[in-house]
Amino acid sequence: MEGMKSIFKTEEHVFIYPASGTGAWEAALVNTLSPGDRVLMFETGHFATLWKKLAEKLGLKAEFIEGDWRGGADPERIEAYLAEDKGHEIKAVCVVHNETSTGSVSPIAEVRKAIDRAGHPALFMVDTISGLASLDYQHDEWGVDVTVSGSQKGLMLPPGLSFNAASSKAMAANKTAKLQRSYWDWEDMVGPNKTGYFPYTPGTNLLYGLNEAVDMLHEEGLDNVFARHARHGAATRAAVRKWGLEVLCATQGQESGVLTAVKVPEGHSADAFRATTLEHFDMSLGNGLSKVADKVFRIGHLGDFNDLMLVATLAGVEMGLKQADVPHQAGGVQEAMSLLS
Amino acid sequence: MEGMKSIFKTEEHVFIYPASGTGAWEAALVNTLSPGDRVLMFETGHFATLWKKLAEKLGLKAEFIEGDWRGGADPERIEAYLAEDKGHEIKAVCVVHNETSTGSVSPIAEVRKAIDRAGHPALFMVDTISGLASLDYQHDEWGVDVTVSGSQKGLMLPPGLSFNAASSKAMAANKTAKLQRSYWDWEDMVGPNKTGYFPYTPGTNLLYGLNEAVDMLHEEGLDNVFARHARHGAATRAAVRKWGLEVLCATQGQESGVLTAVKVPEGHSADAFRATTLEHFDMSLGNGLSKVADKVFRIGHLGDFNDLMLVATLAGVEMGLKQADVPHQAGGVQEAMSLLS
Amino acid sequence: MEGMKSIFKTEEHVFIYPASGTGAWEAALVNTLSPGDRVLMFETGHFATLWKKLAEKLGLKAEFIEGDWRGGADPERIEAYLAEDKGHEIKAVCVVHNETSTGSVSPIAEVRKAIDRAGHPALFMVDTISGLASLDYQHDEWGVDVTVSGSQKGLMLPPGLSFNAASSKAMAANKTAKLQRSYWDWEDMVGPNKTGYFPYTPGTNLLYGLNEAVDMLHEEGLDNVFARHARHGAATRAAVRKWGLEVLCATQGQESGVLTAVKVPEGHSADAFRATTLEHFDMSLGNGLSKVADKVFRIGHLGDFNDLMLVATLAGVEMGLKQADVPHQAGGVQEAMSLLS
Amino acid sequence: MEGMKSIFKTEEHVFIYPASGTGAWEAALVNTLSPGDRVLMFETGHFATLWKKLAEKLGLKAEFIEGDWRGGADPERIEAYLAEDKGHEIKAVCVVHNETSTGSVSPIAEVRKAIDRAGHPALFMVDTISGLASLDYQHDEWGVDVTVSGSQKGLMLPPGLSFNAASSKAMAANKTAKLQRSYWDWEDMVGPNKTGYFPYTPGTNLLYGLNEAVDMLHEEGLDNVFARHARHGAATRAAVRKWGLEVLCATQGQESGVLTAVKVPEGHSADAFRATTLEHFDMSLGNGLSKVADKVFRIGHLGDFNDLMLVATLAGVEMGLKQADVPHQAGGVQEAMSLLS
Repeated sequence: MEGMKSIFKTEEHVFIYPASGTGAWEAALVNTLSPGDRVLMFETGHFATLWKKLAEKLGLKAEFIEGDWRGGADPERIEAYLAEDKGHEIKAVCVVHNETSTGSVSPIAEVRKAIDRAGHPALFMVDTISGLASLDYQHDEWGVDVTVSGSQKGLMLPPGLSFNAASSKAMAANKTAKLQRSYWDWEDMVGPNKTGYFPYTPGTNLLYGLNEAVDMLHEEGLDNVFARHARHGAATRAAVRKWGLEVLCATQGQESGVLTAVKVPEGHSADAFRATTLEHFDMSLGNGLSKVADKVFRIGHLGDFNDLMLVATLAGVEMGLKQADVPHQAGGVQEAMSLLS
Repeated sequence: MEGMKSIFKTEEHVFIYPASGTGAWEAALVNTLSPGDRVLMFETGHFATLWKKLAEKLGLKAEFIEGDWRGGADPERIEAYLAEDKGHEIKAVCVVHNETSTGSVSPIAEVRKAIDRAGHPALFMVDTISGLASLDYQHDEWGVDVTVSGSQKGLMLPPGLSFNAASSKAMAANKTAKLQRSYWDWEDMVGPNKTGYFPYTPGTNLLYGLNEAVDMLHEEGLDNVFARHARHGAATRAAVRKWGLEVLCATQGQESGVLTAVKVPEGHSADAFRATTLEHFDMSLGNGLSKVADKVFRIGHLGDFNDLMLVATLAGVEMGLKQADVPHQAGGVQEAMSLLS
Repeated sequence: MEGMKSIFKTEEHVFIYPASGTGAWEAALVNTLSPGDRVLMFETGHFATLWKKLAEKLGLKAEFIEGDWRGGADPERIEAYLAEDKGHEIKAVCVVHNETSTGSVSPIAEVRKAIDRAGHPALFMVDTISGLASLDYQHDEWGVDVTVSGSQKGLMLPPGLSFNAASSKAMAANKTAKLQRSYWDWEDMVGPNKTGYFPYTPGTNLLYGLNEAVDMLHEEGLDNVFARHARHGAATRAAVRKWGLEVLCATQGQESGVLTAVKVPEGHSADAFRATTLEHFDMSLGNGLSKVADKVFRIGHLGDFNDLMLVATLAGVEMGLKQADVPHQAGGVQEAMSLLS
Repeated sequence: MEGMKSIFKTEEHVFIYPASGTGAWEAALVNTLSPGDRVLMFETGHFATLWKKLAEKLGLKAEFIEGDWRGGADPERIEAYLAEDKGHEIKAVCVVHNETSTGSVSPIAEVRKAIDRAGHPALFMVDTISGLASLDYQHDEWGVDVTVSGSQKGLMLPPGLSFNAASSKAMAANKTAKLQRSYWDWEDMVGPNKTGYFPYTPGTNLLYGLNEAVDMLHEEGLDNVFARHARHGAATRAAVRKWGLEVLCATQGQESGVLTAVKVPEGHSADAFRATTLEHFDMSLGNGLSKVADKVFRIGHLGDFNDLMLVATLAGVEMGLKQADVPHQAGGVQEAMSLLS
């Protein structure tokens, strides 16, 4: 618990679920909201869309600020939307920090300021399932009310643990929130957690791994971890530009250090390319999801990743492009290397 | 999926959650019931009580047939209770198969017959979290509508996976059930499962382990596995009798082959005895829960357990009783051995 | 290196070979002796006999003080033998500390005194392959010149590492020893070892394990480790007596805490009994070797072994005796337990 | 045993030692030769030199055909040398197949023909410790009498097992060979091996690994394994040429697919470069040994290695050259990639 607080950078509450990240999304909502509540979400990509569907399944009125999947959430549009809500009916603003489907990062601190500028009391919820422990994240400093995360990305563990970090304001909302809940209920967790217990069987084995992961992160230094991922993101984008391909994230400064989604040229299949790369180089790339299915592939550079692993990955992509006859220019790997050494 | 069907002995639906058994309890209820529905439960012990509380948290009207924690569910009392419910307001009968807190086993096939004798249409739900793959269990043959189980007992895995097996009748109830659900929703599972996917990140590592566990069980033969646990239960009870102590389960034929709860003599602390045993023999025994806290200790003999491991366990108990000055007669281990060889 | 010195209790030289214990036997001889040298050995059992054959293969004149395999080496007979050797032609006295084939322990400190009483300059070599880190051993204090050991017994590792500890006197003998040697040569080791290297590829993985094993032993405390094995030896012998069987070691005070060899009654096959025990209880007992083949079985209680593991082992024996119809009295396990609690 | 025969491509004898490769060198000599025997060796590099020293330590007269460390053994010079030995005093010709210190491969089949052309009866011994299971090797077909190998290179295991494959001619020589031997004695092995035993404790854990390694090699297909290493060697040399550096092996057709030794420009320290690469890219390169110390570094591409791992390795070298200010041209990685895709 203390270790996870140091990763979320919070002095407040952390909850650990034996569940996938999707469960922690649900937990964030059911612990703080009531049936019919309006929640504002921002369409950063596939996962933001899934979170919205989940909110709707739970009986919330989820409203989407539409996005083009090529950048993070836009603070100004959020501010404008909230300013319209004079009656403060919107009870939560939900933003995805690192959109795993697009490789774009939302400016969380700026969204907080936008909410404040609008003078709006909504809870601020952030999904950083794939961002935590790879990108800078500051639950307290940035004024987030509920942060959602999971074990299988920056924390370098198998899937199976997920997390909520909750502010005092969120804890207060929990008292009056009327959405049905049991497994996810924070209230049932607080007591047992104080004495080192959980209200039901926890993911014991993964908790041991989590301790070790937190130690590893602090041993390297969180700032060094963040710098490493930023370097890998920049090197990857340099390679993509050299190949003459386009990075899906089109918003300067919001490109992710966790993964890079790359568009294949019109008339080419990203999935055929991915299949070729897997067959020839035993390397599995991420696929494009829903709106960008078959149009993009995703290069992961998260977790326990180093410079040479990145070069190997980019080489797999470059050689795969050649094998699959996707039009491109060679030299991307060499370009990336020039940024790494 | 096919493997788990062979363990549940069902041709119908199986759902696998990346969650603890408690989550699968919740899943069973939210997938089939609506707010305010009456459910009949039987107080076999601590876990039956937890399941009832969970049902209440979810907005169900849970009614308890009280029990003394010294046996399984009583089919006759269930039949009588249902017979009173002329209007068929009770929507589900929920019974714990193997009560982990008491070491008693409910006669599931008999409960089914009792429901039928009462001519009652309620769904029949069974928790066999700690019984599956140790005690005979037949989802289809016994007419169970929803079976709940988990990975960390008879399936010999770490915690982190839990299961629902669902009959066609339960699947039909899912169509009209109004309880709020998302993570647990069967409907969202059915489609992706058909092509080998899940609607969200599954517990991948544990799924590999599950395949192996199912293979191990079939290699030994389920009937041999059941016989082994039955033999270990009988040997343990023989040891307990020889020690002059009392088995918590007082109902002939309902004693568990998974674990044996043992009462310590009046005026003695089961927890002090457990602490002594842990300190001197590096062996951790289960504690008494709620009503029987400090009054019983529990000897586990589940999972990948063999005769010599059982003798070692019983020796730890017998030597612990001596160390902790709990009045008893020596010779329990020897008595158990006479039943094992 | 430092860790192994702390286990041998020596301030002198330690050599680590990527080889079995048999290699370290050979190393002890070829590093210190010349072709045709006389060496005095004591027939404590099968392994002493193998060491003698090895010496003969190497061109040494190995002389045996015959023994009945029912005790350790006899200091008085060694003293008498040496006293006869007025010309000091005997260059080494070789004794097995813990005879793995019989479960007898030679009184090493007493043998040293016997050599001194005889005023004989022979080197004193001791094989404690199976004794080290289970039984008290003091290379320097007891005046041993070359100690031989291995990784796979008290050091709790897989086989693959073996050791020599060498006194200054042994190191001096190395300068003039004429037996052919290369792989085993101490001289080639001394230089590289000083800077953390070896003259050829070492057993790298096992060296990591060795570090951990040494830490584990010191964490428990060597004296506690020795006391634990002594207790297990005594409990095992109590069980054997209760069964009405006979311990092979017939010399009071020389019974091993590492293993206990047990005679089966005349007319019964120890190997048939062992096969039965393996089949019924999945427990593999040691067999009788050469002179005592099929006449004894051996119960191991070495390494990372605790009280309950011992009880399980003894239960396997007692139930195996019953299954195999070997005449015995029940109650051995219970007797052992009375000594353990 | 059968598995190793399929790797050595022999129908004759295979011996497995719990020892390093150096032990198997010793075994080859002591099992077949007598004190004072002349043996002809070829100075392919550091390891050939070590084997010669070992032979001398064992009392053999080892004669060296000097080499410049830039190629494999020269069959013509061997033929000429043997032709001089009218009295057939030379009892063995010893050649290193893959020189781990230089990355050169000796043409074993050609050496066999050269011996035959000279009409010389000497035994033919080959060290393929680092070549086996990476480069084509045919013990029987090539008429080798004793092949020496080890576990930690192409067999993908930790160090700790080493091997001799022996022809009938070598087995016959064993009968009359007078060099002292015990641990290494083939004769003591033959009997126990027939029933699945060893004359002393084998490296049990590694034997399980060996079974798996052999299965993995056959699953990929030995010819595919060899082609993979050949491709990696060629790609590595292309990178080296692009960097403007020189491959140590200067003999066309004898460059190794197992490793590539690379000369650093005059006035630069290979070891300083290696230290820089380790520090910046967490990659450890092989050092230059004896004659070429600090003048070369070695790039390994053996064992379970794939194209992307090779690119990563070459990238580590290229970026390390830049970091360490070693004069070179960029583009080597890109050049290698063009050969891999």
